[in-house]
Amino acid sequence: MQKIILDCDPGHDDAVALIMAAKHPKIELLGITTSAGNQTVEKTSRNALHLCQHLGLDVPVYKGMRIPMVREQEIADSIHGDTGLDGPVFAPLTRMVEPKHAVQFIIDTILASDGDVTLVPTGPLTNIAMAMRYEPDIVPKIKEIVLMGGAYQLGNWTAAAEFNIYVDAEAAYVVFTSGVPIVMMGLEVTNTVLCTGDTVTRMEKIGNTASKLFADMMHFFLKTNKEVFDMDGGPLHDPVTIAWLIDPSCVTLKEMYTEIEIRSNLCYGRTVCDYFGMTKKPPNSRVAVGIDQEKFWDIVESCLRLY
Amino acid sequence: MQKIILDCDPGHDDAVALIMAAKHPKIELLGITTSAGNQTVEKTSRNALHLCQHLGLDVPVYKGMRIPMVREQEIADSIHGDTGLDGPVFAPLTRMVEPKHAVQFIIDTILASDGDVTLVPTGPLTNIAMAMRYEPDIVPKIKEIVLMGGAYQLGNWTAAAEFNIYVDAEAAYVVFTSGVPIVMMGLEVTNTVLCTGDTVTRMEKIGNTASKLFADMMHFFLKTNKEVFDMDGGPLHDPVTIAWLIDPSCVTLKEMYTEIEIRSNLCYGRTVCDYFGMTKKPPNSRVAVGIDQEKFWDIVESCLRLY
Amino acid sequence: MQKIILDCDPGHDDAVALIMAAKHPKIELLGITTSAGNQTVEKTSRNALHLCQHLGLDVPVYKGMRIPMVREQEIADSIHGDTGLDGPVFAPLTRMVEPKHAVQFIIDTILASDGDVTLVPTGPLTNIAMAMRYEPDIVPKIKEIVLMGGAYQLGNWTAAAEFNIYVDAEAAYVVFTSGVPIVMMGLEVTNTVLCTGDTVTRMEKIGNTASKLFADMMHFFLKTNKEVFDMDGGPLHDPVTIAWLIDPSCVTLKEMYTEIEIRSNLCYGRTVCDYFGMTKKPPNSRVAVGIDQEKFWDIVESCLRLY
Amino acid sequence: MQKIILDCDPGHDDAVALIMAAKHPKIELLGITTSAGNQTVEKTSRNALHLCQHLGLDVPVYKGMRIPMVREQEIADSIHGDTGLDGPVFAPLTRMVEPKHAVQFIIDTILASDGDVTLVPTGPLTNIAMAMRYEPDIVPKIKEIVLMGGAYQLGNWTAAAEFNIYVDAEAAYVVFTSGVPIVMMGLEVTNTVLCTGDTVTRMEKIGNTASKLFADMMHFFLKTNKEVFDMDGGPLHDPVTIAWLIDPSCVTLKEMYTEIEIRSNLCYGRTVCDYFGMTKKPPNSRVAVGIDQEKFWDIVESCLRLY
Repeated sequence: MQKIILDCDPGHDDAVALIMAAKHPKIELLGITTSAGNQTVEKTSRNALHLCQHLGLDVPVYKGMRIPMVREQEIADSIHGDTGLDGPVFAPLTRMVEPKHAVQFIIDTILASDGDVTLVPTGPLTNIAMAMRYEPDIVPKIKEIVLMGGAYQLGNWTAAAEFNIYVDAEAAYVVFTSGVPIVMMGLEVTNTVLCTGDTVTRMEKIGNTASKLFADMMHFFLKTNKEVFDMDGGPLHDPVTIAWLIDPSCVTLKEMYTEIEIRSNLCYGRTVCDYFGMTKKPPNSRVAVGIDQEKFWDIVESCLRLY
Repeated sequence: MQKIILDCDPGHDDAVALIMAAKHPKIELLGITTSAGNQTVEKTSRNALHLCQHLGLDVPVYKGMRIPMVREQEIADSIHGDTGLDGPVFAPLTRMVEPKHAVQFIIDTILASDGDVTLVPTGPLTNIAMAMRYEPDIVPKIKEIVLMGGAYQLGNWTAAAEFNIYVDAEAAYVVFTSGVPIVMMGLEVTNTVLCTGDTVTRMEKIGNTASKLFADMMHFFLKTNKEVFDMDGGPLHDPVTIAWLIDPSCVTLKEMYTEIEIRSNLCYGRTVCDYFGMTKKPPNSRVAVGIDQEKFWDIVESCLRLY
Repeated sequence: MQKIILDCDPGHDDAVALIMAAKHPKIELLGITTSAGNQTVEKTSRNALHLCQHLGLDVPVYKGMRIPMVREQEIADSIHGDTGLDGPVFAPLTRMVEPKHAVQFIIDTILASDGDVTLVPTGPLTNIAMAMRYEPDIVPKIKEIVLMGGAYQLGNWTAAAEFNIYVDAEAAYVVFTSGVPIVMMGLEVTNTVLCTGDTVTRMEKIGNTASKLFADMMHFFLKTNKEVFDMDGGPLHDPVTIAWLIDPSCVTLKEMYTEIEIRSNLCYGRTVCDYFGMTKKPPNSRVAVGIDQEKFWDIVESCLRLY
Repeated sequence: MQKIILDCDPGHDDAVALIMAAKHPKIELLGITTSAGNQTVEKTSRNALHLCQHLGLDVPVYKGMRIPMVREQEIADSIHGDTGLDGPVFAPLTRMVEPKHAVQFIIDTILASDGDVTLVPTGPLTNIAMAMRYEPDIVPKIKEIVLMGGAYQLGNWTAAAEFNIYVDAEAAYVVFTSGVPIVMMGLEVTNTVLCTGDTVTRMEKIGNTASKLFADMMHFFLKTNKEVFDMDGGPLHDPVTIAWLIDPSCVTLKEMYTEIEIRSNLCYGRTVCDYFGMTKKPPNSRVAVGIDQEKFWDIVESCLRLY
């Protein structure tokens, strides 16, 4: 049983990660913290609440940082629509976010823990970096950070950078220089887990609330990924983090020293992964280099069946 | 009567600023927040408490950020000694910092205010930038930021940068891009208000606790400024902020658009002040370009006499 | 018949490119210019002369720039050995470089041409960039630049950059912003054409001077690639340029806008290729994204058979 | 008798430097090389020729680099007008530039010298840097470089940079890292030698061709300096180099380690002068920190009287 905080900006793929994390017996979801990324934190918080309400999950939701640590805000509404989770129709919202700030929740939870809590950020790293700076004592008590973000080959938001890291590269810099063990699920792997029409059909057959929700979300997500990236299928970036926590054998990791570029305009937000060990610096991250597609989709399906 | 929060890292010149701000009838000192700069925040907090205890001031002290927002910590112990305020001998400390974090105190105070609170940072801008990011609603409610830091000519920590800005340039970037009106007391002016042996003699003659403390601190400060910078006298950088709040006619300000360099290694932390208006961008700061020495030292003396 | 100048720093793979270009009926090799890269320009020039003398080629050799345009020199002796072409044993050198400087030869040749000369740099771009700056009139008269260098995924000299571009990124910046059509054979493709023991056996069977030379060079090259990169085989980077000129169908190119990073320390020399067209800027390069291995090795063999 | 090459982009203040250098008995002007800066090199070359023809000087003029080494070209026509030397009316041009390129002339002259030639650049450093890279053997044979350019306080083209350095900072980087002794006449001093209406009157009284030319040029120059910089007077930047060569006692120099910023967009082209020796690096330059105004104008007058 792994205790985690899911730090997310739902977002269609975040939503699937949330669905997977909330009920799986191997995972104890201590709380959901929201970040600004795919949409503003107001909207991603609403989406997290909608997901919990719709699925009857009683996990607490904490609203996080509204803007990046240093730079100006940028969102990804081209992919996730105006609400940040366009597609499904939800009942009017009755649930509310907790009064505590997400950063404070992360701090309090880690400080009170026995060093057994894993942070799982699937959006920009603003909340986690702010918590690390606000209360440095948490750093040695974080078990691990399992994040979706980065790329050692091609970016998806600029030619050099992946969206989650680009949006708040200074936060990523803080996290990658913190010394906390990092598992990085980057685009090389997450771009390969494409949810296609066939996938939607397969999951829809499960026939419960979660599978119906999955289908509603994916119909929209597949459409915008076609429009914006000309991809046939929508990459389920964020669920790779949860899938790996459930079954580490589904993702192949490679140890690397990874630096975050914050001094260049052109390459701002690049995760400079020393794949070949040329810097001779000790690795600070394990980076995803391969995934077992069959296992991954089986895990997704098994999670959806828990509803 | 101007309501201020003094955000400082005492530090010999911070200490004088504190002494000046605490009792002057034109200033209402709402609280002291401490930053890491001249020394670690543990030490600067102790120094702030020592000053308050020694002088019988009942202003609350809030401990602030331990490390910069993004980069690694650097301190200036070569100038301020191992305690950060070497020189005077204080009685054992009985006062304590408030339980609230300095960042939270700044947020709460600004939110509860009528937009009439001025922030006076005389150390790195970490606390203020963190408060601005943690609770963006405070930004439009800050009346003004009157800071000691920066230089449009020569730096004092690197060839390009002044210490307070250099230590946390990302924080300075946040502050200078915030839209809050800024008064910047930079080295061009603060380096000219040199406390010399004669100054010490003059202030010592006042003959009260504060003047005795001033002398004890300055003896050490003059010594290290001679050793490190080969300067004959110790520049009272930080008190320029308070002197200006007491009597704005003592400092000449010039409107400029000022940018903070955070993308270069060589010029990191430079305040790039557009003195000649070449960028055509609207000014975001008023920068000190001259000071009336006589008025300044008269203000310092008048403040010391209030004890 | 394509008129080319081969601008190279032999180097084992450069040597194979030279062998291929010198006798193929589709290529008219106007001259060889040498660059500093794999080794100093003194050594790469000697190597070019040795190759010509050994194979009885009467193509003129012009010595080029000794050091990069702006930065300090770096060489790759770990791969190519102390001479820059360790392995084969050559007879004492009787041939000499031409009195004209390589940069001047490039300028004169292009100015005198009908716009039908292609430049084929397989080392750092110093000579070509210097020629473009020294005599800007050549720029619109260069037919095309077919270069080996760069990478849109992983570097081979730093985590961000490929060797040829890294060694003189300012020169690459000049070339990529010149407006001359560029074909870029980067590591994604050149790293895949691995000369293995089997390849050596196949080429050795040809049984002429060139094939013997090929084998002598490759024995050393395979050894150092194993030692430095732990690769089973030596990538024949540079010959991809000549192979494509002989038969364009062997390499798949994709149009991209490529920028050269010269402002960052961490990513210095990265070819930031906008693979997905996210910048919306018109392409300035066609970048290799695939290669027909069988065709490539058949071309190499056919070239060796011409001796 | 000091042998010099004047590398200039006349330009009004360059023109005065040229007039001063051409006839003074302490200076042997070996040649004039032209750079692109105040105007295109076509125009600055024409201006150099006009000056020589008008004043009957038989010093050879060599046309130099048309564009900067790496970046795009920028000129200063706002100050120097459309011809680059607006104001005086010259007779039709009969003199021509030498057939040799300025870079080649610099190389040949230095190589043929006994190490006794000083380079005096009063425009961008493109020619000199190109010569140093094209023929590195000249570097140890250059006696000294006495340049106008840079600033350790405020720039005049951006908030961070002076025009001559900004226009080709990569060239400046090459020069300042070359190891050649450098005397840098920066804005701190050159901005203080203001040619005013009174100065024009004084020089006009001399009553010869040179003094008449001086007056014609200055009338225009004073006008644009008023318009662009709101300065009452035109700073005779470039002549400070020649004045110092004639009488070193007129300028106070201070040894500093100076670096050129080429990695930042914001501070591009800044001369980062380590005035206080904080880097502990050995000085590579002597930088002007003061000037004797009376001596300076006396030297200018004495030079004008030689015609």
